[in-house]
This record gives sequence, structure tokens and C-alpha cells, in this order.
Amino acid sequence: MSVSTTLRVEKEKLEQYVMEVFQAAGLSEEHSSIVAKHLVLANLRGIDSHGVSRVEIYTKRLDLGVTEKKSKVNVVKESPASMLIDGGNGLGIVLATKGMEIAVKKAKETGIAVVGIKDSSHCGMLADYTMYAAKHDCIALATTNAPSSMAPWGGKVGYFGTNPFSYGIPAGIEHDIIFDMATSVVARGKITLARKNNQSIPLGWAITKEGRPTTDPFEAADGLVLPVGGPKGYGLAFLMEVLSGLLTGAAFGPYIASLYKDLDRSQNVGQFFLVMRADLFEELEQFKERMDQMIREIRNIPLAEGFEKIYLPGEIELETTVERQTSGIPLSVNILNELEAVGRRYGVRYSL
Amino acid sequence: MSVSTTLRVEKEKLEQYVMEVFQAAGLSEEHSSIVAKHLVLANLRGIDSHGVSRVEIYTKRLDLGVTEKKSKVNVVKESPASMLIDGGNGLGIVLATKGMEIAVKKAKETGIAVVGIKDSSHCGMLADYTMYAAKHDCIALATTNAPSSMAPWGGKVGYFGTNPFSYGIPAGIEHDIIFDMATSVVARGKITLARKNNQSIPLGWAITKEGRPTTDPFEAADGLVLPVGGPKGYGLAFLMEVLSGLLTGAAFGPYIASLYKDLDRSQNVGQFFLVMRADLFEELEQFKERMDQMIREIRNIPLAEGFEKIYLPGEIELETTVERQTSGIPLSVNILNELEAVGRRYGVRYSL
Repeated sequence: MSVSTTLRVEKEKLEQYVMEVFQAAGLSEEHSSIVAKHLVLANLRGIDSHGVSRVEIYTKRLDLGVTEKKSKVNVVKESPASMLIDGGNGLGIVLATKGMEIAVKKAKETGIAVVGIKDSSHCGMLADYTMYAAKHDCIALATTNAPSSMAPWGGKVGYFGTNPFSYGIPAGIEHDIIFDMATSVVARGKITLARKNNQSIPLGWAITKEGRPTTDPFEAADGLVLPVGGPKGYGLAFLMEVLSGLLTGAAFGPYIASLYKDLDRSQNVGQFFLVMRADLFEELEQFKERMDQMIREIRNIPLAEGFEKIYLPGEIELETTVERQTSGIPLSVNILNELEAVGRRYGVRYSL
Repeated sequence: MSVSTTLRVEKEKLEQYVMEVFQAAGLSEEHSSIVAKHLVLANLRGIDSHGVSRVEIYTKRLDLGVTEKKSKVNVVKESPASMLIDGGNGLGIVLATKGMEIAVKKAKETGIAVVGIKDSSHCGMLADYTMYAAKHDCIALATTNAPSSMAPWGGKVGYFGTNPFSYGIPAGIEHDIIFDMATSVVARGKITLARKNNQSIPLGWAITKEGRPTTDPFEAADGLVLPVGGPKGYGLAFLMEVLSGLLTGAAFGPYIASLYKDLDRSQNVGQFFLVMRADLFEELEQFKERMDQMIREIRNIPLAEGFEKIYLPGEIELETTVERQTSGIPLSVNILNELEAVGRRYGVRYSL
């Protein structure tokens, strides 16, 4: 398999084009902007698996009517510190953006708040939401469940999704700490992207549906990903499933529809956001000073052999952002062709 | 190195003896009972690293006056959904037990609650606390920081502790799900126990202080443990440090005193408990039915090669508990000798 050619695209141009596409697909200006900014942010951070490579499938689902064009926050249950939202099968990115805004607003008032969303759909890169909370001086934990693609430890049939988990923590002078991980060895989107870009994947990421290790992203996409750290990743995926799915009343495990394969029904994914004020116990300045101290001390630790730098959680993504803001976002010709084709469907002039 | 002989001891006898020892060491009857039950529960669950092998060091610190005999819940800050406790350098197990009780009580009233404890000490096995919450129909997350023994990913000097994380989730007819993991490949206590029992440790658990892989528990105890899943375990350890240490105002990173080595000062460990009602969004019965369904479906998944059973998170510990309740708790002669010697110090008749 050969690696496909990539071109660099300016952030603003990409955002503008993706926004136009979503507006043409029937989303409001506000929601198109939310989705475009989210996807381009993922690309900026180097999380290309959750970037504009998703435009094609998101719009396809909107066209088919299996994702609603109007994403509304329907409040099912509310208390000062919590809210359950019925997403009404809207776009996950819009719902999660609104959900996190509500969680932060509530946490500001009560100290700590939880927002759950049911009947939602794929919400992209969790880091976007936890970054928002950190910017507002809150500590946030975020998770979502996802279509079945990972077996419980010891099994050979999928049950859990890659059930990602993200946190955001505000710092002072230093950058906020933003962490985002799949509970699998890698996010499934990385396999999808490798497939689109005709790249092989490393051994240890996934197994075929017969349980055989593979480097073929097509075999891997039909197979299963493995939990990180074996039983530990399995235990974490279990928790994320409970918080996102069972607690909120969303679907769980194999009952979540696949974003790509189940084009006849809504996903019913769940999201869970927990937000605390960073100054819940201590003064904000003190908390931030201690964060800065810890960050600097970690940075100054002597390097192990084979390493050139100690990265703070999320720092690689931060460096990538700075680089891509200057030099543009590298997109493969495959992805660019896909974006052009989607635009053509709606009569949007291709401008990348 | 040879494995030392083990004897089986009845749970009740062990609890009684350990309780007498702690009373003789100056703890109240109530607190002695809390500590004895906690340690024996750890042994029952097979977490021997956090069981009665800790009696010697806990009592030594009490005798030296570097842990206070009276553990008091000093409320520093309180809201309906949160409490910050100053542990006043009391026994971590007593403080954490009280802290979780308060968190559950508050969550029952407000839906969700957070309790932080600063100036605490080693609090044993987190699963004890999350089990309590699950029994009270709550979902609980618990964490604590710990003396530095793990380098940030890419470094060769310790900064974080093994920073464990536990959760408890109530089920219906099925057993509650209780998960407890170190963010290192293994808990440091497993290395301490291997040392006491003259056993070697598997490769991959730890490195020497020079950064060399080792199977020698003595070298490992002087060296560092490795984070689970590399950068992912590092990212999780970072979060646990922030929640336990920075948020609460406890010490963090290398500023936490070692339980074993720093016999001249308090540890200033922090603990963090987050509790939600399981019926925060859905009816309790519905939540529990869905939990039972998920548990049964996971159990029925076809087995991967090399596995004989799919365990739910915490189920191995549950099976061990049942077995040890019937057949007794296996303790090495080394540990029994240690327990006898501690009793002798206080004039407590050895009865195991």
C-alpha cells in the first residue's frame, strides 16, 4: 500500500469551506460554524481521524435523515447540579458543545455539575469540550460511548466501543492541560483514516474478526481493536459505557448503531460531562500556581534513553496546532477529493 | 529466591487480632475496627499488598507520632455538594472511610457530590470505599495520590505515585461492579509484598534507579514502576495527582512523604471521592436492569483463545473473597511473624 500525497490547506479556508458545506446540507449558520470549527480544530491538533475526514459521513447521514438537521437541547431532567438532555438524534458535535456549555455554567454556580446526553450521535474529538471548560477555569471529565468494536478482556466478539475519555485542567501561565485517550490501544478513527489514505497500521492495534493480529486497515475495520493495558483498558471502557450509556438512558454496547454501516437508523450514542470549578476547595490563583509548578517540574525531569523531550498530556497536540496554524493543515488527496465531491453534491464551490 | 510457606487464617480471627493490635497502639475501638476490617477485606479480595502486611508500618508510624492516633474530620470548606476535609495527619483508612460516607450522604441529597481530603495518609485499598457507595446505590469514583515512584513518560526520575483509581457501580441481581487499578503497570504494594515474601517479580513491572529492567523486588523498590500503556497511564496518573493533590491542597508529586522511608514526617497525601446517585437521570430499577443485562451479555461473549472465562471488572476479587471466606486467608510465615512481633510490642496475645 502506498501513502497518498498530501497538500497543505489554510485553517481559515478549510473552516470556511466546511461551514458552507454544512449550511448547504441544511444546518443553521450557528450549527454549521460549530461543526466546522470542531472538525478543523481536530485537524489542527493532529487528530486527523476526527477532523474533516468526517464531513462525508456526517453529511451523508444528514441527507438520509438518520441524523436530524436541527439539533435541539431537549431538557428531560434538571437539578441545580445536573441536566439530562435528549439529543433527539441531532448532530453529536452540536449537542456536546451545548451540553458542555451548560455543564460549565452550572458548575460555576454549584461548584460541580453533570450533564448527560442521550439519543446523541458521534461527537467528534472530546478534547474540544474539555478545552472549553479549562478555559473557563474548570476541571472537566468527558466521555462518550461508541459503536461496538472492542471485546471485553478474554472475549473475541466486540461489545464496547473505543469509549474515549478526556480531561481538561486549567493552568496559570502555562498552557491548560488537555488529555484525550481512547480506552483501546488506538482510536478506531485512526484505522478508518489509514484505510482512506491507503496506509498499513502497526501490529498490536487490532485483530481481524477471526482474532488474528493484522496490519491491514481493511481487515482491522472489520475486526476488533484491543483495550489498552488489557484488563485495565477493559475496566475503563466499562466505566465509560456506564456513564455515557446506562446512566443517561442512551443505547449501550452492541445496540449503538455504526456511524458508517448502519445508514438506516439513529446511533443513540450517549455523552457524559462532569465539570468542577478548579477553585472548588482552594483559591484559583493557588491552584493555578501549583499547576504551573508541577508542569515545570515535570518538564525538567532528566530524560530516559530514547526520548528527546517530556511532553505534558496534550502538549504534542499543542505543538502540532502551532505548526499547522503557520504551515497549513496537511490533507491527503483522497480526503480533498472526498471534500470536493461532497461540496459538489450541494453545489458548493470548491475552494481548497 | 524461594517462595515462603503460607498458612491459612480465619477471617474473623485475623480481624479480631488486628483490631486488638490497633487498640493497643492507641486507636479508639471504632477506628481500630475500621482499620482491621479494611485490611482484612483487602486480603479477602486477594489484594494482599494492601492487607495485614501493612499493620507493621501503620503501627510504627503511630508509635513514632508521624501519624496521629486520633483521626478527625476537620471541615475546611463545605457546600451542599462538596466538602474539603483537613485530615490532620490521621490514618488514611479512617479518614477515607468517613470521607466516602459523607460523599454518599451528600450525593443522596444533591444528586452528585465531591469530597476531598488533604493532610491524609495511605488509605489502603480504594475498592473498599467505592464498594460502600455502590451498596448505597451510588456510582463512585475514588482516587488518591501516593509517594513518587513513577516517572512521567519519557523521564527517568520519579514524580508521580502509582496514583490508583477505583470505581463502584451498583447492579441489580448481579453483583455490584467494583474496579480498582493502579495507573502503573502494577501497584507498588505488589513489589513490597514480593520483597517480604522473597519472590521475584515479572519483567515489565519496574526499572532500577539506573533505568534498567529488573525482576528483583529489592532493586525495583529502589527504582521506578512504569505507567500502564505508556503515555496513557502517564496521562491518567497526572489527572489523579491533580484531583487528589492540587485540587485539595494536599502535597503532590515528590513532596509526598514515603510511608516506609520518611519516618520523620507526615505524608500529606490527598484523597478525592466523587459520588453520583445511580438514579441521577433514570429510575433506579431501570438502571439496575440495564446493568444486569450488560453484565450477562458480557459474560456470554465467546472466549478468545487462551481464556477460560470473561471476568467482569472486580470479579476475580469477588471469587477470591468467596474462596477465602471458606478456606481462610493465606498468609506467609514472614507476614505472620511480623504480625506476632507487632502484637508483642503492645503486649497483645498472639492468636493466629
